[in-house]
Amino acid sequence: MKFQTPKGTRDFLPDEMIRRQFVINKIQEVFERYGFEPFNTPAFEDFDLLAAKSGEDVKRQIYEFRDKANRRLGLRFDLTVPMARVVASNPQLPKPFKRYAIAPVWRYEEVTAARKREFWQCDVDVVGSSSMESDVECITAAVDALRELGFKNFVITVNNRKILDGFIEAIGADKNKDLDVFRAIDKLKKFSEETVREELKKAGMNEQQIGKLFKLTSASFEGGKILLKESAVGKEGLKEIEEIIKFAKMYGIAKMLKVDFTLARGLDYYTGPIFEIVVKGYEKYGSVAGGGRYDKLIETFGGRPTAATGISLGIERIIEIMQQEKMFKLEKTKTKVFVAAVDDKVRENAREIAKRLRGEGIGCQVDLMKRSLSKQLEYADALGIPYVLIVGQKELKSKKFKLRDMKKKNEKTMTLQQILKMFAK
Amino acid sequence: MKFQTPKGTRDFLPDEMIRRQFVINKIQEVFERYGFEPFNTPAFEDFDLLAAKSGEDVKRQIYEFRDKANRRLGLRFDLTVPMARVVASNPQLPKPFKRYAIAPVWRYEEVTAARKREFWQCDVDVVGSSSMESDVECITAAVDALRELGFKNFVITVNNRKILDGFIEAIGADKNKDLDVFRAIDKLKKFSEETVREELKKAGMNEQQIGKLFKLTSASFEGGKILLKESAVGKEGLKEIEEIIKFAKMYGIAKMLKVDFTLARGLDYYTGPIFEIVVKGYEKYGSVAGGGRYDKLIETFGGRPTAATGISLGIERIIEIMQQEKMFKLEKTKTKVFVAAVDDKVRENAREIAKRLRGEGIGCQVDLMKRSLSKQLEYADALGIPYVLIVGQKELKSKKFKLRDMKKKNEKTMTLQQILKMFAK
Repeated sequence: MKFQTPKGTRDFLPDEMIRRQFVINKIQEVFERYGFEPFNTPAFEDFDLLAAKSGEDVKRQIYEFRDKANRRLGLRFDLTVPMARVVASNPQLPKPFKRYAIAPVWRYEEVTAARKREFWQCDVDVVGSSSMESDVECITAAVDALRELGFKNFVITVNNRKILDGFIEAIGADKNKDLDVFRAIDKLKKFSEETVREELKKAGMNEQQIGKLFKLTSASFEGGKILLKESAVGKEGLKEIEEIIKFAKMYGIAKMLKVDFTLARGLDYYTGPIFEIVVKGYEKYGSVAGGGRYDKLIETFGGRPTAATGISLGIERIIEIMQQEKMFKLEKTKTKVFVAAVDDKVRENAREIAKRLRGEGIGCQVDLMKRSLSKQLEYADALGIPYVLIVGQKELKSKKFKLRDMKKKNEKTMTLQQILKMFAK
Repeated sequence: MKFQTPKGTRDFLPDEMIRRQFVINKIQEVFERYGFEPFNTPAFEDFDLLAAKSGEDVKRQIYEFRDKANRRLGLRFDLTVPMARVVASNPQLPKPFKRYAIAPVWRYEEVTAARKREFWQCDVDVVGSSSMESDVECITAAVDALRELGFKNFVITVNNRKILDGFIEAIGADKNKDLDVFRAIDKLKKFSEETVREELKKAGMNEQQIGKLFKLTSASFEGGKILLKESAVGKEGLKEIEEIIKFAKMYGIAKMLKVDFTLARGLDYYTGPIFEIVVKGYEKYGSVAGGGRYDKLIETFGGRPTAATGISLGIERIIEIMQQEKMFKLEKTKTKVFVAAVDDKVRENAREIAKRLRGEGIGCQVDLMKRSLSKQLEYADALGIPYVLIVGQKELKSKKFKLRDMKKKNEKTMTLQQILKMFAK
C-alpha cells in the first residue's frame, strides 16, 4: 500500500517545521507584548455553529461529518467563530477579552500552489470593546509581528461594512441581500468584473444599480462623504474610519492606511471596519493579514451583545514570501553537535559526553547505527549538523577533543569545558 | 442559538493554555536536546492508511468522513502512523530519522474525566535504527522531559511482543490470532480477568490455554527464560530486553526498569520491545508515556524495510497530575503590566509608555474601554496582571510613575527607566 497526504494538505519535514516554528514563535512573542493571551478550541465544532455566519461560499467549503452518535460536525474554517462561541457561553470572562490563537483551519477550496485545504491562522481579537482603538491595536500588533519577521513597508487597506450598506441604500438595492452583495464585491480582486456583475444580478440588482455601485466603490474617501450624505448607516461607517485614522496616528501606523471602498471581505459576520495588510513590494503575493469588526457574532451564538474585532495573519503566505524572498537565516536542523565515537571501545564515553552537553541544554546526537567515524561524519553532514565532536581513546586520555566545523571544514582541539562554553553562547 | 463543544472535546481558556504551553515548551526543549527534529503532518489522512495497522478497537474509534470528492478520510488517532507514511514515501531522508511531533489526535472513545476524544500527544521516534539503544534513547528523553516538569521517580515497565508471541507458541495457540491475543492481554489492567478470558476465547483459545497464558504472563524475567527456552521468537524477545537493560545502564535509567509480561499495548503495529512509564507515587493516574518498536510499519505503507521505535507522552494526563498535585507555579496571565491612564487627557501618553514597554518585549495592556482608573485597576486584578503602571499629568511632569504591585497591594514611585529595567529581568 502506498499513501499520500489527502489532496490540499501537506507534511512538514524538519527544515520546514524549523521555519514554521520560527515564524510562529515571533508572532506569538509580539501578540503577548500587546497583552493577548493564549487560547485554543477543538478542531471540530457543531456544523450549525460553523454554518451560522460563514456565508454561502465558505459554508460549502466546510469539511462536514457525523460522529458515531450521528452528531453533525465540521472542521473549523477559522478561529473567530469558535472563539465567539466560547465568549457567548462564558459571560464571566473579564472584558475586554484579548486572546490570540495559532492553529490550523480547514476549507475545501480549489487547491493551488498558494491555497491549501489545511492551513494555519494566527489571530488576535479584542472582545468587549466597541472603541476603534481595539481595531487599531489589532492591526498594529499584526504590523509589529510582520516587522519582527523582517518585513518593512505595508499598505493597510481599510473599509467599513456600514459604508457598503450605505452604498446599497444609495442605489436603492435590496438591503436584505447585502451579504450577497458583499461577497460579490469581495471577488472584484480575484475575478473579472463580468463574474461579479453576474453575482450582483443574482443578488437582485439591475444593470443601472450595478453601474452605480461600481462608481461608488471606486470613489475617494472625500468623494464617499458626499455620496453618502443621505445615508445614516453610511455616515456611521465613514465616522468609524475617521476614528480609525485618529487612533492609527496615535499608534504610528496612519501613513500606511489606505481607504478602499472595494474592500468587502468574504465572511458574513463582519459588521463594521474591515481591513487587510499587504507588504509593499510583495503585492503579487496578495494580503498577508485581514480582519474586521463583528459586533453581532457573539449574540448570534446566544451570548450578550458584545462588540468584537480582530485580525488574522496568514502564516502560509508569510512563510511562502519569506522563503521566496530568501528572508530566512536558519539552520536546517536544531541539533548543534554530533558526538562521534571513533570506535566501539569509546561508545560509552561518547554517551557520557552527550549527556553532559544535553545537561547544559545543548542539542546533540550520538550514533545509533554502529557506524564508522566517516559514516558518522557523512550523516552529520547530510543533516546539516554544524559541528561534530570527535571522541577517541587519545582524546579521552588528553581530555582534549577535536571539534569539527562542518561548514568551514576545519577542526579545533578543545577541552570539554571550552566546548560547553562555546555552545552555551 | 446556544452551542457547546462537541462531546469529548474542550476549550482551553488562557490560564489553561499557559499551563499547556509551559508543559509543551519544556517537553520540546528536552526532545531537541536529544537531537529530535520538529515535524508535522495533516490532521486527516486516507482512512485506509489509518485503519491498516490500528487494530480493531482503535479502528472503530476513528472519526471517519468523506470529502466533497468522496475520498474516504479520517482524523489521525496517533502521530506514529502518519510519520511512518512520510518515511515510506521519502526514502531520501537520512537515517536514523529522529523527529518529534506535538499535536492533537482524535479517538471516539468512552468519555471520562480523564479520557477525551481530542487529546494531544508528544512523540519522539528514531526511524532506521534496529539498535535497542534507540528505544532506550526515546525512553530516556521522555524521562528527562518528565523530570524537567518536576516529576522525580518513575517505573518503566518493559515487555516485548516477541515474548508474547513466544507464549502463544508455548501454549500451542493460533499464531495468526496473535494480535487479538495482544489486545486481550492489554485489557488485563483495565478490565476484569473474565472480560479478558472472553476475548481470548474469541481469539480461539480454550480454557486450558488461557490458564497457561495467565501463568506465563505472571512469570518473572528469569522464569520467562526457562518457560521460553524452546521458542526461538520468545528467546529473541528476551535477548532484546537484555539489550535494553544494558543500554539503560549506560543511560542511567536501569534502576527504574521493571519487566512485566502482562504489558501488551493496544495497537497492532508493535513488533518488539514495548514500554510504559508511570510516575512513582502517582500510579493512580495511570501511565504518562508509552511506546514501542514497530519494525514492519513503514514496509506496510510501501516503504523499504525500516526499523523504528518511539515513545509518546500523554500531555493531558501529565497536566492533570501537575494540576491536581499543585506542581504549577505560573501566573494566570502572560501580561506583565497594565498601563493605566488617570484620565482622558493622558490617554495618548499612556499609549506612548505602553509602546516603550512593548518595544522592550514587555507584555502590557492599556485601557480600551474608556474606563475610570479604579475600573482599570479592577480589570487588571480580575485578569491577575501583576503590576499596574499609573500615568497621570503629575507623573508625566515629574517623570516618576507609580507602579502598583497588585499582589502585595503596595506602590513604588519609579522612573520609566527603572521600570523598564525591573521588567527586563
